[in-house]
Amino acid sequence: MPIRLTDLSLTVLDTQYAVRGPIVARAAELEKAGRKILYCNIGNPQALGQKPLSYVRQVLALCEYPELMGLDHKGIAERSSAADPLPEQRFGSAFPPDAIEAARHILEGTKYGLGAYSESKGVLAIRKAIARFITERDGIESDPNSIFLSDGASKSVELALRILISGPQDGIMLPIPQYPLYDATITLFGGRKVPYYLDEERGWRLSRELLDKAFMDAVRKGVKVKAICVLNPGNPTGAVLDHENIAMIIDFARSHDLSIITDEVYQEDVYFTDFRFYSFAKVMSEKGVDNVSLFSLHSISKGFLGECGHRGGYMEIRGVPGEVVDQITKLQSLSLCSNLPGQAVTYCMVTPPKEGSPSHDLYIRERDAIMSALRDRAAVLAHGLDGIHGIDCTPIAGAMYAFPRVSLPAGRTDEDYCLALLEATGVCVVPGSGFGQLPGTAHFRTTILPSMDEIRDEISLIADFQAKYE
Amino acid sequence: MPIRLTDLSLTVLDTQYAVRGPIVARAAELEKAGRKILYCNIGNPQALGQKPLSYVRQVLALCEYPELMGLDHKGIAERSSAADPLPEQRFGSAFPPDAIEAARHILEGTKYGLGAYSESKGVLAIRKAIARFITERDGIESDPNSIFLSDGASKSVELALRILISGPQDGIMLPIPQYPLYDATITLFGGRKVPYYLDEERGWRLSRELLDKAFMDAVRKGVKVKAICVLNPGNPTGAVLDHENIAMIIDFARSHDLSIITDEVYQEDVYFTDFRFYSFAKVMSEKGVDNVSLFSLHSISKGFLGECGHRGGYMEIRGVPGEVVDQITKLQSLSLCSNLPGQAVTYCMVTPPKEGSPSHDLYIRERDAIMSALRDRAAVLAHGLDGIHGIDCTPIAGAMYAFPRVSLPAGRTDEDYCLALLEATGVCVVPGSGFGQLPGTAHFRTTILPSMDEIRDEISLIADFQAKYE
Repeated sequence: MPIRLTDLSLTVLDTQYAVRGPIVARAAELEKAGRKILYCNIGNPQALGQKPLSYVRQVLALCEYPELMGLDHKGIAERSSAADPLPEQRFGSAFPPDAIEAARHILEGTKYGLGAYSESKGVLAIRKAIARFITERDGIESDPNSIFLSDGASKSVELALRILISGPQDGIMLPIPQYPLYDATITLFGGRKVPYYLDEERGWRLSRELLDKAFMDAVRKGVKVKAICVLNPGNPTGAVLDHENIAMIIDFARSHDLSIITDEVYQEDVYFTDFRFYSFAKVMSEKGVDNVSLFSLHSISKGFLGECGHRGGYMEIRGVPGEVVDQITKLQSLSLCSNLPGQAVTYCMVTPPKEGSPSHDLYIRERDAIMSALRDRAAVLAHGLDGIHGIDCTPIAGAMYAFPRVSLPAGRTDEDYCLALLEATGVCVVPGSGFGQLPGTAHFRTTILPSMDEIRDEISLIADFQAKYE
Repeated sequence: MPIRLTDLSLTVLDTQYAVRGPIVARAAELEKAGRKILYCNIGNPQALGQKPLSYVRQVLALCEYPELMGLDHKGIAERSSAADPLPEQRFGSAFPPDAIEAARHILEGTKYGLGAYSESKGVLAIRKAIARFITERDGIESDPNSIFLSDGASKSVELALRILISGPQDGIMLPIPQYPLYDATITLFGGRKVPYYLDEERGWRLSRELLDKAFMDAVRKGVKVKAICVLNPGNPTGAVLDHENIAMIIDFARSHDLSIITDEVYQEDVYFTDFRFYSFAKVMSEKGVDNVSLFSLHSISKGFLGECGHRGGYMEIRGVPGEVVDQITKLQSLSLCSNLPGQAVTYCMVTPPKEGSPSHDLYIRERDAIMSALRDRAAVLAHGLDGIHGIDCTPIAGAMYAFPRVSLPAGRTDEDYCLALLEATGVCVVPGSGFGQLPGTAHFRTTILPSMDEIRDEISLIADFQAKYE
């Protein structure tokens, strides 16, 4: 007899992931039937028109096929056959020398090129480059042996939660609204969700009062709270936490013996000129806190790289004893290693072309074009949505999403709304219930990634729809 | 207070993965101290001298940087800036036209290039190519919607076991000896291991008698047996199962309502001319069995590609009801999608250059050189080890390993042996206990991947060591 649905575990069946849920499935159906769909459901920059950085792709092409620079697959100047013509005259000179240098450095670090498994944690030379990046960004030390390369931040979330959830009594605090991967993974691993609300009225900041309330409620229910997850910049909220707010969260975690998982994948996506990104690592270090375990995540999928398809990123851990680090390494080794092209892109992300080097100007030009487009669209989208009667949208300080609040007719849910919006306009957004929201409120999430023209269309389509929705 | 070892779950702590265990860690220490280490512990072809296929790397370079063929990152003939010079004259002509065609086909399939998330299951055009490959290989139908691209077969194992293990009562039959990922993942997911022994005297075949015994023993202990895992060709055994043996396993699974996970990553690695690889899908189809759920795995890491670092592969499922397929898709969507370069390599694996096309001859030449080297080394290694007094080695019919049996002095374990071998000779092999073995026997696993000279050295080092070991 084949396997049946009833053979599956409740944790699998209960796991929900709205970003790729039923509304997206319906959009795909409509598209197949010939409807034009504007996919605003997912932060997938290159699917919505963003171009990859030339430098990153040049380095990747050179790493994949080092014959382009006259080298073998390990980056060594040997020919595979003496009979073949030397290719460096044909190709090498056409790539910028700093891209060639980066590719050679990556290949040297891997020792065997992109086709061999690396160490489970990732290539040491790349982990060293990440540690230098953290040091330069934050002015603090970073240990390459506390860095784990990953197939995207989702895999780091999984790894951290696998370590933190030891049984059904263990609780993980997660923001409401949150990126649904957290909810899904906690459910899948059989842990308890301990939701804490973000304060929409105060730009989605965290409040100590709401954190303490959530913690105490959980303790009263017998939950052993192990960690708090914080997304900064926030997804779906678009909030960028200030120094004071981060310091408060660290104090909260310390006072309750919690670990911190901090998802910092949108750290480059800060749009307000008077806001800046502070890492939890930096603030913890400034405060001299060394007795809180910190799991910080970063990714190549967001920022101005937007290299989602390459599935790369890393987790840096702090305040984690060596014997626990060994357990994390062991778990990582079950997948052998993260993919090497993703590791190579991570190297490029943390080691951009230096000022004065041949690729620098183009890199900066491409980067700034992307960032300024994102900034403009964030402003237009938030402003446009906020101007619609029945919709309130917090300004988008960072990340890649608007999360407007919608007034609904009695008896309607946000799922009803998003489905009706899709059917009526072809605009595909994700209902707020997929992220969680204060009971009695309704929201949806939509990305800032479509072109400015499409965003203007989207706003006017939503405005028309909203006026008639009943 | 930071997280402590005692905060972790027993399932995490109990998980063991010998292929990257303490002996490998010791080898890395010795290497750091200046010792020459011969790493025979892992099937990592390109780390042991195997060269990537030129065609695969050309296609990858073109997909990563389509400007090499005068296209943008989505494979469309548009320039990112009209001011830039057109590159096709410089590069495009230097790549074989069929590599360019394959790259264009892949980019067209992805729609947005390698930098965007694909569908959770993987790019449809690539799944269609895999379905065609299965149809050509086996003469049976294959449905692209039953195929899930993965970051290597390890991730497919994880996905299948996540579906099959619903609680601590659920048991998974796994061979002894086995590839330790199975043991590790079952432990991590809190399932029960139901080991069945392979018959070393009969070339590591499966026996119905031993399967029934293992099944009944488990049932008596209250285990609900859900599935059987079969590795064909076998790792670490090197066995290639014949048609009759596969048919027997299918009958066994059917008679006990078990699903089958079949790990067929070494399907290209068959060295004996009178042996051939039969897929479980083919044999099941020939027998008209449609009421057994089958999860078949393949990978780009083994065979003659050896592209481990690219982390690619797929799982094809059969006899799985639609509502369970939806659950698998949902779980896959938590990681969003597998990495796109790995998907592109998978496309190349299932769609090699056609006869008469420009890349065909070089492809065949490179492929045959790799396969004949593997075949020669398999023969020399098995014969050489078998000739050592105190060591018995089954001939290596397939896959990439020898798994010889060693006679040990009283009081010595295979771990002692492998550690002493490493310290004395620099040869790094994995103790049999990491894979499981009949109580009272001792083995080790060593790959056929080093060069012929290194394999000859290895044999003579082991022979000298064995003569003196006490």
